[in-house]
Amino acid sequence: MRLEILPVLGIGDVTEGDDLAALIATAAPWLRDGDVLVVTSKIVSKAEGRLVDVPADGPERLAARDEVLAGETVRVVASRGATRIVQTHHGFVMASAGIDASNVDKTRLVLLPKDPDASARTLRAALRERYDLDVAVIISDTMGRPWRNGLTDVALGVAGMPAIRDHRGEFDPYGNELQLTQMAVVDELAGAGELIKGKCDQVPVAVVRGYLGVARADDGEGARALVRDAALDLFSLGTAEATAAGLRAAATLTDGPGSAPAEPAAVERAIAAVAEVVAPETVFTHVTDDEVRAGMVAGIPGWPEQATGLVLGAPPTPVDQADLVRFGADLQRLRTALAAEGIPSALLPPPAGSTASAALAI
Amino acid sequence: MRLEILPVLGIGDVTEGDDLAALIATAAPWLRDGDVLVVTSKIVSKAEGRLVDVPADGPERLAARDEVLAGETVRVVASRGATRIVQTHHGFVMASAGIDASNVDKTRLVLLPKDPDASARTLRAALRERYDLDVAVIISDTMGRPWRNGLTDVALGVAGMPAIRDHRGEFDPYGNELQLTQMAVVDELAGAGELIKGKCDQVPVAVVRGYLGVARADDGEGARALVRDAALDLFSLGTAEATAAGLRAAATLTDGPGSAPAEPAAVERAIAAVAEVVAPETVFTHVTDDEVRAGMVAGIPGWPEQATGLVLGAPPTPVDQADLVRFGADLQRLRTALAAEGIPSALLPPPAGSTASAALAI
Repeated sequence: MRLEILPVLGIGDVTEGDDLAALIATAAPWLRDGDVLVVTSKIVSKAEGRLVDVPADGPERLAARDEVLAGETVRVVASRGATRIVQTHHGFVMASAGIDASNVDKTRLVLLPKDPDASARTLRAALRERYDLDVAVIISDTMGRPWRNGLTDVALGVAGMPAIRDHRGEFDPYGNELQLTQMAVVDELAGAGELIKGKCDQVPVAVVRGYLGVARADDGEGARALVRDAALDLFSLGTAEATAAGLRAAATLTDGPGSAPAEPAAVERAIAAVAEVVAPETVFTHVTDDEVRAGMVAGIPGWPEQATGLVLGAPPTPVDQADLVRFGADLQRLRTALAAEGIPSALLPPPAGSTASAALAI
Repeated sequence: MRLEILPVLGIGDVTEGDDLAALIATAAPWLRDGDVLVVTSKIVSKAEGRLVDVPADGPERLAARDEVLAGETVRVVASRGATRIVQTHHGFVMASAGIDASNVDKTRLVLLPKDPDASARTLRAALRERYDLDVAVIISDTMGRPWRNGLTDVALGVAGMPAIRDHRGEFDPYGNELQLTQMAVVDELAGAGELIKGKCDQVPVAVVRGYLGVARADDGEGARALVRDAALDLFSLGTAEATAAGLRAAATLTDGPGSAPAEPAAVERAIAAVAEVVAPETVFTHVTDDEVRAGMVAGIPGWPEQATGLVLGAPPTPVDQADLVRFGADLQRLRTALAAEGIPSALLPPPAGSTASAALAI
């Protein structure tokens, strides 16, 4: 195998209603079956009329831009300053929902194509039907990513080849079965195309020639296969946003006691975590479920069946009203520290006859 | 410009101490000045002896692997089940620190090269000095990424070209200055190389021919330029880890009152956030700094100079000891909700003569 990456020159300015298949086939009469066309999403958006009029400058422009962004956003993933990383209605996570103000009049913004997989299928079908060309089509755009500086081009849409090349089940020469090796080849192809396209729209289409696995009869499942479900993603929220979510969760902690016994070391870690910030004489004591049931602590009102242990808390003595309020705050800190260890808890009145002022069922 | 991507065939098995420059130059006598060599990191690791002996299976293998991983890890970024996303000593964020068990005996693990930029420089220098070839060298590896399924190859090390192509300051045909457009071209080149290399080590080197900007006199700053400082990264921690960090922060909240006036709407949001979980008759009242200073609330012991407002809290009446403990817990919930809104607070005794049982300076 050997690949060539070729620029399609002379496409010129694309405007709403333009026939992309005709523009590309005319500019590149040398296209062949099996070629992969990497098409910059911007010319697809322009041809499809995905443009919005906005003021050229001033606060009105910013307000209009915010409104356009809100319309493209399903959820905000992270923000800092003016930066907004959002998930789009397509499922892509990208800065500003991919809305772009470059390579367009100052009074317009370019949105991503509404359905880039459909755009890829439409272009592929037009090239097949009208120009007898069996190619794969990738609609590409530029994205940033966590952890690494610099942007790369990736695929928003694809037709005519699988988005992913799955090596699972293959064996290496040492007899090890390959695992976890699903390559996002359409992203690599999109990036390869970018290497000759540049950023100023003179070359909005690149052709990758020689890549195997193209020219399938069907369109394939599209770039949609690249969108990871947020529930499966370890980075579904920005760090600051997730930290704030943790604070909010702490504020509204409602968990009852858990059904599995809490690991004693984890309980001790939670007690240690708050030791520096609670009142100096506040003492928390961990009593295991076995000890409770063995009668070491009797007569706890409201002791729930499913509780698997107890933390007793005693405030400084003698206590006044302010001490009890402070002690309550300390107990809530401990509940939060337990939650950070994955241990739910419930506030109980103190056991009868004990010197404790309150108890947590865990 | 037109690019070719060519496989280097016939390199065969690489073992410790092998001379990579000789292996590559012999297998690819057709190399030319200006070519970009994309070299799979694994053969660099093997040649450099970055291998560790481990048991072939069983819990001993898992334990040994964990130990090796700990040695390569600077910090754990995210984990779920057996998955560990870590930052390596190079600064890269990747699963299992890039440690790999494929394409190697079952009793060995392959670590990443110790300094992939140095590896790239060494290989480049050897090809220049001994084979009179002026090429760029990219050391590549396979990485996953948030939000998108599938893996891509990216650059761990580079010599002979810049890691990033910076378009900032250029103008598009519409006169818009390009912003934020720094392309990680070495990652795109690494991905392009992967398209013909495959996963089974038969083709550990690809050559990209025709890419401009190669054959510089100097090595350049290396792939180190791609490592984003965690402090600048919006995704420096996994969502679950950051949420737990928020819970821990809530448990140990020590902030005093802030110096800037709290936005009243944010205070009201915090009060509303805990309304469902505090005791039904607990009432929180926001009093602004102006109102405090106007004498609406007098005689607050410990009122700090820098406080810019007050939240008064009254528990249900009549109160007993358990009510006060519960009320203290509710106050701590409110402090946490305020913190989630970015509003620091401090617990104070109630103002003299008020019916409040406690106050928060904000």
